[in-house]
Amino acid sequence: MKIGFAFCAIVLVSIAYASDPGQLQDFCVAVPDCLCSPNCLNAVFVNGKFCKNPNMVVADDFLFQGLNKAGNTSNNVGSIVTPVNVNQLEGLNTLGVSMARLDFAPYGINPPHTHPRATEAFLLVEGTLYVGFITSNPADPAQKNKLFTKYLYPGDVFVFPQGLIHFQFNVGKTNAVAFASFGSQNPGTITIANAVFGSDPKINPDVLAKAFQVEKNIIDHLQAQFWYNNN
Amino acid sequence: MKIGFAFCAIVLVSIAYASDPGQLQDFCVAVPDCLCSPNCLNAVFVNGKFCKNPNMVVADDFLFQGLNKAGNTSNNVGSIVTPVNVNQLEGLNTLGVSMARLDFAPYGINPPHTHPRATEAFLLVEGTLYVGFITSNPADPAQKNKLFTKYLYPGDVFVFPQGLIHFQFNVGKTNAVAFASFGSQNPGTITIANAVFGSDPKINPDVLAKAFQVEKNIIDHLQAQFWYNNN
Amino acid sequence: MKIGFAFCAIVLVSIAYASDPGQLQDFCVAVPDCLCSPNCLNAVFVNGKFCKNPNMVVADDFLFQGLNKAGNTSNNVGSIVTPVNVNQLEGLNTLGVSMARLDFAPYGINPPHTHPRATEAFLLVEGTLYVGFITSNPADPAQKNKLFTKYLYPGDVFVFPQGLIHFQFNVGKTNAVAFASFGSQNPGTITIANAVFGSDPKINPDVLAKAFQVEKNIIDHLQAQFWYNNN
Amino acid sequence: MKIGFAFCAIVLVSIAYASDPGQLQDFCVAVPDCLCSPNCLNAVFVNGKFCKNPNMVVADDFLFQGLNKAGNTSNNVGSIVTPVNVNQLEGLNTLGVSMARLDFAPYGINPPHTHPRATEAFLLVEGTLYVGFITSNPADPAQKNKLFTKYLYPGDVFVFPQGLIHFQFNVGKTNAVAFASFGSQNPGTITIANAVFGSDPKINPDVLAKAFQVEKNIIDHLQAQFWYNNN
Amino acid sequence: MKIGFAFCAIVLVSIAYASDPGQLQDFCVAVPDCLCSPNCLNAVFVNGKFCKNPNMVVADDFLFQGLNKAGNTSNNVGSIVTPVNVNQLEGLNTLGVSMARLDFAPYGINPPHTHPRATEAFLLVEGTLYVGFITSNPADPAQKNKLFTKYLYPGDVFVFPQGLIHFQFNVGKTNAVAFASFGSQNPGTITIANAVFGSDPKINPDVLAKAFQVEKNIIDHLQAQFWYNNN
Amino acid sequence: MKIGFAFCAIVLVSIAYASDPGQLQDFCVAVPDCLCSPNCLNAVFVNGKFCKNPNMVVADDFLFQGLNKAGNTSNNVGSIVTPVNVNQLEGLNTLGVSMARLDFAPYGINPPHTHPRATEAFLLVEGTLYVGFITSNPADPAQKNKLFTKYLYPGDVFVFPQGLIHFQFNVGKTNAVAFASFGSQNPGTITIANAVFGSDPKINPDVLAKAFQVEKNIIDHLQAQFWYNNN
Repeated sequence: MKIGFAFCAIVLVSIAYASDPGQLQDFCVAVPDCLCSPNCLNAVFVNGKFCKNPNMVVADDFLFQGLNKAGNTSNNVGSIVTPVNVNQLEGLNTLGVSMARLDFAPYGINPPHTHPRATEAFLLVEGTLYVGFITSNPADPAQKNKLFTKYLYPGDVFVFPQGLIHFQFNVGKTNAVAFASFGSQNPGTITIANAVFGSDPKINPDVLAKAFQVEKNIIDHLQAQFWYNNN
Repeated sequence: MKIGFAFCAIVLVSIAYASDPGQLQDFCVAVPDCLCSPNCLNAVFVNGKFCKNPNMVVADDFLFQGLNKAGNTSNNVGSIVTPVNVNQLEGLNTLGVSMARLDFAPYGINPPHTHPRATEAFLLVEGTLYVGFITSNPADPAQKNKLFTKYLYPGDVFVFPQGLIHFQFNVGKTNAVAFASFGSQNPGTITIANAVFGSDPKINPDVLAKAFQVEKNIIDHLQAQFWYNNN
Repeated sequence: MKIGFAFCAIVLVSIAYASDPGQLQDFCVAVPDCLCSPNCLNAVFVNGKFCKNPNMVVADDFLFQGLNKAGNTSNNVGSIVTPVNVNQLEGLNTLGVSMARLDFAPYGINPPHTHPRATEAFLLVEGTLYVGFITSNPADPAQKNKLFTKYLYPGDVFVFPQGLIHFQFNVGKTNAVAFASFGSQNPGTITIANAVFGSDPKINPDVLAKAFQVEKNIIDHLQAQFWYNNN
Repeated sequence: MKIGFAFCAIVLVSIAYASDPGQLQDFCVAVPDCLCSPNCLNAVFVNGKFCKNPNMVVADDFLFQGLNKAGNTSNNVGSIVTPVNVNQLEGLNTLGVSMARLDFAPYGINPPHTHPRATEAFLLVEGTLYVGFITSNPADPAQKNKLFTKYLYPGDVFVFPQGLIHFQFNVGKTNAVAFASFGSQNPGTITIANAVFGSDPKINPDVLAKAFQVEKNIIDHLQAQFWYNNN
Repeated sequence: MKIGFAFCAIVLVSIAYASDPGQLQDFCVAVPDCLCSPNCLNAVFVNGKFCKNPNMVVADDFLFQGLNKAGNTSNNVGSIVTPVNVNQLEGLNTLGVSMARLDFAPYGINPPHTHPRATEAFLLVEGTLYVGFITSNPADPAQKNKLFTKYLYPGDVFVFPQGLIHFQFNVGKTNAVAFASFGSQNPGTITIANAVFGSDPKINPDVLAKAFQVEKNIIDHLQAQFWYNNN
Repeated sequence: MKIGFAFCAIVLVSIAYASDPGQLQDFCVAVPDCLCSPNCLNAVFVNGKFCKNPNMVVADDFLFQGLNKAGNTSNNVGSIVTPVNVNQLEGLNTLGVSMARLDFAPYGINPPHTHPRATEAFLLVEGTLYVGFITSNPADPAQKNKLFTKYLYPGDVFVFPQGLIHFQFNVGKTNAVAFASFGSQNPGTITIANAVFGSDPKINPDVLAKAFQVEKNIIDHLQAQFWYNNN
């Protein structure tokens, strides 16, 4: 029994070996995160994910199924992201790329967010979206953070550079569907409102009131809401 | 006039700043390859592409249109690739990701090829494909290069690791459509048959006869064909 | 005169060669951004910055002076950042590191922000700060974005991982002073409130009302404010 | 006994930590691939190789012997490669470089192949070789894949860029000997004919007949041959 | 007991995951080097450090305390370095940046040394230093290795490029204090005199006599000294 | 004439685009350093080297000749290095690898030096050498910098990790010849004695006397010598 635990401590090791560091063999298929519950507390992890014995690797390790299925957009933002990164498709480990499907109900929004570890190339295949990103702080204090926006139609590809805040908004009366490509096996997503107002525990409301230049009761109101994580 | 030439020498500088090296500013939109023909011979280039004054950048620099349109598969392989990399979408420069659309006629093939500078995540959206990749040379001489294959259906995502030879074959009676994601702004493509038998100039046929263990007349036959470049 | 312009087009080329790509010579001192105004519109740029003839480099190219001087915190956030990155210290070009000084008035805040291209190691040398960062979206929908906070005292070093939203708040009645280290020559800064509510042009208020789950008049109020850029 | 197995699962972990990701300590000597046969099936691996306790490292970990000995070229290509990469020389782990010796019998060939993870600098020390490489697919459909060739004599160094197909052919009546340098601890090799015609299992011959524009019986003939792996 | 050992072999694995390879998750807090003494001989290591289960990470993992305290400069160089890298601050693992405090007694020296894995940005906060670095070997044999020097005063930031030999010397009658930033989680330090004359075992004195063009008795004298390691 | 100068300012731009940043196209052949003397002072440079129009590239751009010729070891260290890096072989630009030939007279030494930007794999082909490297400063103050040494014989390959001080000494009565491989297009070399005692201008002798714990007259003696640069 204890022996099993010792072994567990090795095999369940895992996290999210991702994009930038170059690959050092043909492939390095990720091992699922935790093989032997309930006790993974003493597991060790690496930068990215541990991987499978290459002699045990099969074609299914490189396959993810179901990206043709619409996600469920019945939530308070009216959009849902179906990620296909190293956490869903083990064969992507060490290989520096990943994908996602995005579904939007009419007037659904993928709210302002950033990907800390990858640029996104975004292909709209159905519907009409209003999309945009904002540049980082201007060096010249007289300037402002620049907003770049476009209305996208089916067949349009738009670029959201790494780390910049961006959003997509369904301006049509019909659903919209898009596929995203990322230059990392695990790009990460930070939804601004969720991180700022929905963290656990909450950020001190005095901090946020000062940062957002509003009355504290507005912050209290914001922190009291349910911040749905659509990805 | 000569002044114009001097200036040209700068502005037309360009190539293909691609994936791996990290980005060092919010974006670095590529300058089109050669602004002042006919004389670009003395132009200098960089690793990737020179870029535009950031104050001149507009939202259209991040937009590519038309990936909803089927490519023309009337060629001798029955497939066509529509790339959306830094050569088509300037905003991708320095950002490490790109895309492509692939169209297949019934029984069309995207013949064995490699991408020397990126892994490909391949999403089938229509039709049925038989796909596969082969690993590099085995360390154990008794082994063989391993082939991993799958039949893909709509919604399936498959991984082709960087540098490995792979192919896609339309086994259905209908067209097939796929979208590919690459972890580089300029992944490159080497179609094996085209490079080996269709190079300019031709490889010495004695070399190929020995390498492929066939009679020289088969090599002559192969080198005499037209090798269509479907990407 | 026109010759001067042609030359200008070369020399003023510049941006922000930053952290990740490895250095390929002992040093590559950045050339100042624009030597010959007013017309830099046709300049070309590179990923990072062009650099000086190494034979012309002098010790002063590696020197920045004045980080002992307190910044002016008389603004509506009560804090100011004095950056020492490749834009201020040309010798940092290609070398992957930079610094900053941060001054806080009593109850001053460095509002929630991210650095898209570097982790920050933050050393407090004077005063008391309440600091924190929030992780990216949780994979488990039942979880929340985690907030990690500490009260910092002189001599404390705290880590803000690359791309994560973080803040510093002066909880004491006295000034606070800190020095930050970044693993990039040009880490970039995105102040959340400034980018979201103070962009140029403004983001469509319908988008923000939906994203932040508040009445549109609150968004109007927020967008009407002056968003001071403290860095 | 079972305890031994648990420990084994850790120590035999290994693969091929290679070139690109930077080194993070003075050295990280690779642990041999599998210490406790026969059961390594549950072992975990990393991107590259696990390494030895640095306190146990000795000078012999950095030494490989025997590159002065000619390889045995008695095979159907008349050439043999003796690699000295992380799989043979543990001290190369994390350090981004490797070597090889190449021996050629008269009229021996190192058949068309690619190295997916490194450029090769190739030094001929004895004999005369005809060598070449072919560029990737041309962007302009009217162009062809370019072939660059040279006859090499002792003392010549030639460059084969990463991922491009290349070959060496002994055109002399005497043996030839060369040393290769690679910018990766594990560059990998894909011999085109072996991967395409000698994979395990075989690629569907219909796929290859279509790809190579030949009768299926030629493919059958090719797939029936023994594809010697000379490296 | 033996089971404990098996587990130990995993958990104590560790070294110094450092700067260059990109991070693949929000953070990857390093596990302390050796949890279960005395027997770590069979431990395996990775490029950098293994890390903690992210669910067990707490804010203290990102905190280092005490950089406000002067180091003890009572040694034969009159200076001391207090490092804050991944070995002291586990939260820096995979994040590519680190810091140090440097204290100098009057006329104390931080002797010529290199950092093999990072550039240093050096901020003087107290005192006066004479600092310098020397470039690598000149390509032109008629030239010499160039020395760049400056006198630094409080508030000055100076750059020591990666891998170049540099030094700092306190020319004032008072103590001096500086903070250094490095673009690596584990930059490494090689003090020239200590490595050359104080290695274990000693370098053959004939080698050094020839290399330094001095009588062997001077080498003997140098090798007989105590070479204090101030970092 | 002035037009010529303007053009010059572009074309002569150049330095040493080297190893680490990934390549973004098939190749990027370096442009020679300075095409139009005498006035290159206003030239701009990049991280590495500018490159040739790819349509102008020829096979000779990838060829270096003469590494079969012994270098002249008639100098006061009795050794000479013939480098083949991007400065001699333009085709290596952006490709991350380079080579060198080393010749040693009997009892010749390649004195202690470091390569700041690459690991070296060193192949001895003739003679007998005593070689070694020293690790960086020990974390444990009771330890010493470790020296790893071997006697090398023809066919031996030894590893000198990036940035560590190492040397080679001909212990035999005959010449010795070796070939080195580097994981960078421009690894750089810092000969310790030359940089420390032969810099231009000289390092203040008080600094060196204190650093090396010797009388100032020994430093004066050392600084007065001619420090031959053997590479």
